[in-house]
Amino acid sequence: MKVNSKRLKENIIEIGEIGKTSLGGITREAYSNEYFEALNKLKELMEEQGLEVKVDKVGNLFGRREGSKDLPTIMVGSHLDTVKNGGLLDGNLGVMSALECIYVLNENKIITNHPIEIVAFNAEEGSEMGGTFGSRVMIGRQNIKEEGLSQKLAKYNMTLTNIEESVKDPREIKAFLELHIEQGGNLDSKNIPIGVVNGIVGITRYKLTVKGEANHSGTTPMNHRKDALTMAAKLILKIDEISKAMGAPFVSTIGFIKANPGSVNVIPGEVEFILEMRDLDRKKIDTVIKKIKDYTKTVMDYEFIFELLIDKPPIRTNEDITKFIEQVCVYKGIKYEVMTSGAGHDAKEIANKVPTGMIFVPSKGGKSHCPDEFTEWEDISLGTDVLLESILMVDRDV
Amino acid sequence: MKVNSKRLKENIIEIGEIGKTSLGGITREAYSNEYFEALNKLKELMEEQGLEVKVDKVGNLFGRREGSKDLPTIMVGSHLDTVKNGGLLDGNLGVMSALECIYVLNENKIITNHPIEIVAFNAEEGSEMGGTFGSRVMIGRQNIKEEGLSQKLAKYNMTLTNIEESVKDPREIKAFLELHIEQGGNLDSKNIPIGVVNGIVGITRYKLTVKGEANHSGTTPMNHRKDALTMAAKLILKIDEISKAMGAPFVSTIGFIKANPGSVNVIPGEVEFILEMRDLDRKKIDTVIKKIKDYTKTVMDYEFIFELLIDKPPIRTNEDITKFIEQVCVYKGIKYEVMTSGAGHDAKEIANKVPTGMIFVPSKGGKSHCPDEFTEWEDISLGTDVLLESILMVDRDV
Repeated sequence: MKVNSKRLKENIIEIGEIGKTSLGGITREAYSNEYFEALNKLKELMEEQGLEVKVDKVGNLFGRREGSKDLPTIMVGSHLDTVKNGGLLDGNLGVMSALECIYVLNENKIITNHPIEIVAFNAEEGSEMGGTFGSRVMIGRQNIKEEGLSQKLAKYNMTLTNIEESVKDPREIKAFLELHIEQGGNLDSKNIPIGVVNGIVGITRYKLTVKGEANHSGTTPMNHRKDALTMAAKLILKIDEISKAMGAPFVSTIGFIKANPGSVNVIPGEVEFILEMRDLDRKKIDTVIKKIKDYTKTVMDYEFIFELLIDKPPIRTNEDITKFIEQVCVYKGIKYEVMTSGAGHDAKEIANKVPTGMIFVPSKGGKSHCPDEFTEWEDISLGTDVLLESILMVDRDV
Repeated sequence: MKVNSKRLKENIIEIGEIGKTSLGGITREAYSNEYFEALNKLKELMEEQGLEVKVDKVGNLFGRREGSKDLPTIMVGSHLDTVKNGGLLDGNLGVMSALECIYVLNENKIITNHPIEIVAFNAEEGSEMGGTFGSRVMIGRQNIKEEGLSQKLAKYNMTLTNIEESVKDPREIKAFLELHIEQGGNLDSKNIPIGVVNGIVGITRYKLTVKGEANHSGTTPMNHRKDALTMAAKLILKIDEISKAMGAPFVSTIGFIKANPGSVNVIPGEVEFILEMRDLDRKKIDTVIKKIKDYTKTVMDYEFIFELLIDKPPIRTNEDITKFIEQVCVYKGIKYEVMTSGAGHDAKEIANKVPTGMIFVPSKGGKSHCPDEFTEWEDISLGTDVLLESILMVDRDV
């Protein structure tokens, strides 16, 4: 029993045609016409395979294949939306590989114990709704009281009631499985085709403000300055040093920086930047922020302000499911590495309430969210094989 | 023969009332209603003192006191416009101290050899026209072919012809003298009341771009990154080190920085910043930029782009006039320091065509272009005394 590589490739590419841009990438943003075009295409394919199809009120698409027993479903899938000018595989792979598993089950006339439910989530990528919106709603983790939520929903002709109508009872889902591209260069650089995900990092973001003294760039001698940018440069290098010393999977990034007042002829009196930290162990993030604060306390003449912006805890995948995936790899003689996901995924939302497993395939050159996003088709087939066998392992676990 | 401190203070404060803001500062921008209100007030005061008053077509105000001989004029003054929410003294001091000299000459019935001409320039502060617009026009250094100039002029109901009508023949001006606040902390920190300006620094600005590789902040391990911001931080500190080693008056400033794409969850692939360098010696600026380029050549994995934005040469004040000012200080037993102006001034434009001298008084705490801009009234009187005596020294030099 094997995945049909040719069919899988054709289906992935067919979805990838929807939203193609002149820049060589794909723009199929949540709630766009392109999103719904892809959803309808997938719906057709699902119906062809005899699945019971349903679209919920926030635009998530489900296709259910009944099992032999009255058991909760094994849900498999990912998202259909993309970032602006994104790549072919992010989300798309997870959805179409799940559908490929249905093709293979149908071809082989396999009746599972549990129903298998393919899902294509909406709005996983960062949008006005925040990331992983579709899966967050489905699993009942969208805060109905979030400020401005009904206004945001109204833009897409949705209401708070629609949110409530789209929530599923987690007890009706036995497990969730997601195949995804790694989006980093770990597997590719080591030439390992499968990543077994042991957890998804927590994300903590701080706004840091360095306060010095703004002054005239021409009349203030170098040694009379309290230049907030020079100080910020020192701090950025210190943060880099501390972060590197923590070891993988810890990462920190400063993606945004602003010098105030920002005039070419004024010494910056203030510099703001946003520091993001990710790790599977919340304590490591706390350790790093403490080390950074300890460093700033040794600095004279400048003031440092730390403002917590986001604090999403890390989450571990289900140990049993992770072991099943490892067993599949061992049984099939496939090289794999147990690794942590540095990016958020629909799996992260669902893992809060449902046993969840996640499989990675290598991203060429670690590239993602760009037209160059690519995974060898051979690795895609292999990943889908592992996904299918893992579904069957979970299914046997009645 | 002495300056009347009380009158001088009252006149400075009277002009300072025009454009007062709720933020405690003064906004009297070029071509604003406040600017012309101040101009009309000054015109009144000039007429009271019997000066022959003229406003040229770009809004510069002149008040002429005839001399005994048919000689070119000694021009004295500064500008009447301010930055947004600026201070009391920048520009205002130079104009009102010049008027105070007229009061004293009149009181003492002194007839000079040369005509004395008070000037209040328009648009010295950075505006759409570029800085030192009024003085640049008067001295014939405004490029009529500057791109978009007639469109900019039209906004203020001016034409290219108005520029040409406002140019004065430099041969009609024997010398230009300007009293100004230092705007830096040099004199104040050393407790020296008078600065004799030997020149005004050149200003060179480069846009520097550091190119690394943008990537996902979560999935890219620390040791796989080409983070353009970390590299820029190193470069900023290197520039600071090189600049400090040059010694005064050399200064360099990075007032603007931008990380691209600028998202909190993307490793910056590119960082742009603007480096400004100032010195009285053009060669020093060249040396610094060469040292910076030499450093970037030692760096692997990153690309560095240097783009010249502005290159204004330094200019020296007139040696004879500078000596006259020093002699006045020595004669009166006033402590002074020969120093370089780190900021541009109307004097810088005029020094290109007319022998020019410039006198500084201390800025408290080095503050300027802000509501806290302040100079002790005693120092203001002293500076005006030095200005008056210097005018008379220049006048004797027939």
